[in-house]
Formats: sequence, structure tokens, C-alpha cells
Amino acid sequence: MFHALLVTFLLLTLTEPAHAGQRQDIFRQAKAATALIVAVNDADHSISIGSGFFVDASGLLVTNAHVIEESTRLYVYIRGQEIYSAPEVVAIDPDLDLAALHVRDTWADSLALEADDPPEGTEVIAVGYPRITDILQLGFVLHATTVPAMVSGLVQGQSRTKGQVAAFLQTTGLLNSGNSGGPLVRIDSGEVSAMVVNTVPYL
Amino acid sequence: MFHALLVTFLLLTLTEPAHAGQRQDIFRQAKAATALIVAVNDADHSISIGSGFFVDASGLLVTNAHVIEESTRLYVYIRGQEIYSAPEVVAIDPDLDLAALHVRDTWADSLALEADDPPEGTEVIAVGYPRITDILQLGFVLHATTVPAMVSGLVQGQSRTKGQVAAFLQTTGLLNSGNSGGPLVRIDSGEVSAMVVNTVPYL
Amino acid sequence: MFHALLVTFLLLTLTEPAHAGQRQDIFRQAKAATALIVAVNDADHSISIGSGFFVDASGLLVTNAHVIEESTRLYVYIRGQEIYSAPEVVAIDPDLDLAALHVRDTWADSLALEADDPPEGTEVIAVGYPRITDILQLGFVLHATTVPAMVSGLVQGQSRTKGQVAAFLQTTGLLNSGNSGGPLVRIDSGEVSAMVVNTVPYL
Repeated sequence: MFHALLVTFLLLTLTEPAHAGQRQDIFRQAKAATALIVAVNDADHSISIGSGFFVDASGLLVTNAHVIEESTRLYVYIRGQEIYSAPEVVAIDPDLDLAALHVRDTWADSLALEADDPPEGTEVIAVGYPRITDILQLGFVLHATTVPAMVSGLVQGQSRTKGQVAAFLQTTGLLNSGNSGGPLVRIDSGEVSAMVVNTVPYL
Repeated sequence: MFHALLVTFLLLTLTEPAHAGQRQDIFRQAKAATALIVAVNDADHSISIGSGFFVDASGLLVTNAHVIEESTRLYVYIRGQEIYSAPEVVAIDPDLDLAALHVRDTWADSLALEADDPPEGTEVIAVGYPRITDILQLGFVLHATTVPAMVSGLVQGQSRTKGQVAAFLQTTGLLNSGNSGGPLVRIDSGEVSAMVVNTVPYL
Repeated sequence: MFHALLVTFLLLTLTEPAHAGQRQDIFRQAKAATALIVAVNDADHSISIGSGFFVDASGLLVTNAHVIEESTRLYVYIRGQEIYSAPEVVAIDPDLDLAALHVRDTWADSLALEADDPPEGTEVIAVGYPRITDILQLGFVLHATTVPAMVSGLVQGQSRTKGQVAAFLQTTGLLNSGNSGGPLVRIDSGEVSAMVVNTVPYL
């Protein structure tokens, strides 16, 4: 009956200043900077769907390793309009469940990363493409969704493949697997606190 | 794992001034102005349960067309106390999924409609009667429930029967079919931003 | 599709002043004062898991009667680190679904109880151990979770065993049975508004 989103800390360096702006601007920019990632595996004819977000103006897009690591073809959908195929995989870390892609010749917005850990009670939105196939089948255009959540706290867990001690941020919200790789964005600053990596199923 | 509430814009004219007041007053008025609608179909012995809300002091009650269109008998429960049978169906638009009923001789509160679209991030409550049969079976008196949500944004979708381009407001919250026809009320102003019309199932 | 948390009012006397402090402090204290209760029934080899919270510095811990009443052995986990076995059962009221335990020689934080009813729209957190076995199996350390919710209102219901008229506080959030007995804490004051006693299942 409960949904705990457990998200890894981003280990990337904070390279952009804190984004100041209105709440509406923060929501709009968070959606504009969050891409849908479709990873096709031609060997077993499966598709993995996740989210990712741009962290600089050059087109560097970060997501979960588990979203893309089994794929033979990758597609990135930006703002629900532009499609980029075959982005370059710049880096992949299966243990931390992090991957970085480079999407060339795009004008996507990007998000700044928070330097510190967000305190308990921080209001955030998980931005991404949860249940996107159902939403499209209902006749809606492709779009990013914001799901509100609140930071419960830091929790010690285990890294994905090596089982090493790792810090996670816990929050609770109506997320699903399509949120994987998407950002958790502070509503007050627009900065990214974490990346969605795992959920405890609701039932 | 995700619950997207997709609500149509109300196309009715804004006829009442913005409601100013305390947060508690806004919640109380929103609940007092939201009725339970029970639509009985005597032909197939089925019951459709939904919500509706009063938009003026004369007893004009709006809801979804899909809540009432198959019914042979209609009952309206106000404030959990008063029951009105056989309200007049003033108008029904299956394509926009809107219907208007007239409940005579009532003193229900009414809600003002918002003139503009609510910006992304607006905090709202969905008011209605979700899971009302379960709640009554647990021994609770009949009452309206408020469910918090946050506006994700405007999304282009399709109208219900003709498939024409239509604007929807998306939000995320723990809604169920009993919320259909109920209002999405801004917490800051008490005005109605939209009517609940459809949901993407959680699982 | 909907989750109504229905919580009983605490009937205990308010003995501590309102806790003032920052939002982060309120979250941290609420988690530190909320214990995991594991109730083992050796007769039928079942385990009941719930939450409880300390209401004074002497180690008085309150929870639901239904969490502990079938047990032959009780364990209390505090801050995810200390374990206390065989706490004394000070009082138990099956009808109001309340129980009080005494945990000796602990230094747990405690929470103040709110003197008045919280108004509609009050922002709260349900603190407890929902889905804790799943969380532990994912490799996370034992920890309390905060789930955000908003007060919908007071609702008249029935007491648990005698079916007498009783007042409940309704809210909506992603709770599960592990939240039973845990506190509903006001985000603005850190005071306890209610204890989680019952939920309407989401599906």
C-alpha cells in the first residue's frame, strides 16, 4: 500500500548556479529538460522505457544504467516533439546504476544539480514518463509528467551490482518504472536532488 | 504504479467572483458544494456512482455525462444528509463528457469557476466520493473526501465520442471512479480549475 | 484506487508544550520518536508488524491494540538500532484500538499531542514502518518513513468492538498496514494530531 521511491545521489559535480525563478518556470523547465528514453533490444524483441534529464547545454543526458544497458537501439524523445536516434553512450556504471548519453545538436533545457543533500521535508517533483504507453493509448500527446513527493530522509542501502554501502534518498509518491532515470527536482529551487532508481511496489 | 488524473476544462462562464477565505473555509465549502450522484439503471440493474458540484445558488449541479447518461433514476446526496430524487437534466454533452442537473429547493453551497488556466505546480484538492461504498461499509457516515494533488500541466487529448482535439489538465493523486464529475479546487482561492473526467489506472 | 486513512483521536492529555522548530527538526524528531513494533504469536506462528510512538520521556509508547493483542512476544525497535524485548503492556483498549507500552531505560525522543482538532487542509506526515520487510529485503537499513498527507476532515464512525459513535480524522496517503499505530504529525508544529488505525484499501 506504500510507495517508497529510493533514489541515488548524483555524484556529478555541480557546474551550474542555482536556478532562481517562479514555481511555474521551475515546473516548465523541469519538464522541458526531461527526455523519454526508449531502449530497444532486437535480440529478445523487448523494449525498456525510462526517463533521463539534461545536465548541460551540450546535450549531456543522464539516466539509469538499467534503462539502457540491454539495448541494441536507443531513441530519445525531447519535449514530445523531437526524436534523436543513436545517442552516444558516454559512460555507464552498472553498480551505481548511472549512465550518461550525449545527444548532439539539440536545444534542450538542462537542470542544475544540488550541491548538498536536501533536508527532510523538502518538497520535490519526480519528472518523467510514468505509464506513458497507457497515456498515449488514451489519445493524449506525448508529454512529461510531474509527480509531487516529499523527502523522507537519507537511507543507507546497497549499490546495485557490488552490494557496497551507498546512500539513497527516500521519498513517497505515485511513481512507476517509467520514472526510472528521471530527476527529483526541488520545487523551491529547481535543482536536481537525486535520480529515480528504484521503487518499493505499492501492493 | 502511477495515477494521472486527466480533467476537462469547464467551458462554463465565470459568473462569480473569486472566493477569498481561509484554507479551512475553502475545504469546508468545497465539500459542502460537492454532491454524491447515484445513477440507477433499472434495465440492467446497474448503479453508477460519481460526484458533482453546484455552480450557482439556484441549484445548478454539474457532473460528467458518463456518470448519468445510462440511468433511469437519479439521486443526489447533499452534505451527506439530504437526498434529492429526480433532478432535472438541464443539458448533457457526451462528447465533452459534461452534464448539468437542476436540483430544486436546495441550499447547497456553490463554487466559483476559475477564469484562467492554473499554472503548473498549483496545489489543488479533488473533492468527491471515492470508494464511498467501502467507507460506508466500514461504519462511517456519508461524507465528501478531499484528495490533495498538484497540477502537472495542460495536455492535448481527444474528446470522448468525436475524438476531436481537446485540452485537459493533468494532475496526480489517489483518485478513483467515484471522483468522476467532482471538482478540482485550488487550495489558495477555492475556485474550480477543472472537473475530474478520467484516470490512468495505478497499476 | 483511493486510500483513505482513518485515524482515531488520541484521548490522552496534552502534557507537553507545542514543539517549535524547523521543518527538518520536526521530521527528524518524528522519526526518532516512532518505533517499529513486532508482535509474535507463538501459538499460530504469525507476526504482526506495526508502529508506535513515545509520548513522554519515561518510555511510554502508544500504538494500536490490534497490533499487539494477539501476541505472545513483543519487540520494539528504536531508531533502527536498539531492540527492546518484553515491554510492559500498561493499558489496552480494544474498543478504541489503543494500547500503551512501557519501554524501560530508553532515551527515545517523544512527541507532544495536539490539544485541538487539526483544521481541514492541515499538512501532516504519517510516520512509521510501511512495507518494512520489502525495504529490508532490498538491502536498506531499518528506518522510519514519513508519508505526506493532508487532513480531509473529521468523520463520524464506529468504535472497533462495541460499534459506538466515535470521531475519526480522515486523510489520504500512500499508507499500508505497517503504519498502524504510528502518529500523524503536523508539519507546522510537530505535534501529533492522531494515530493511524485503519485504511480503506486502494483497490
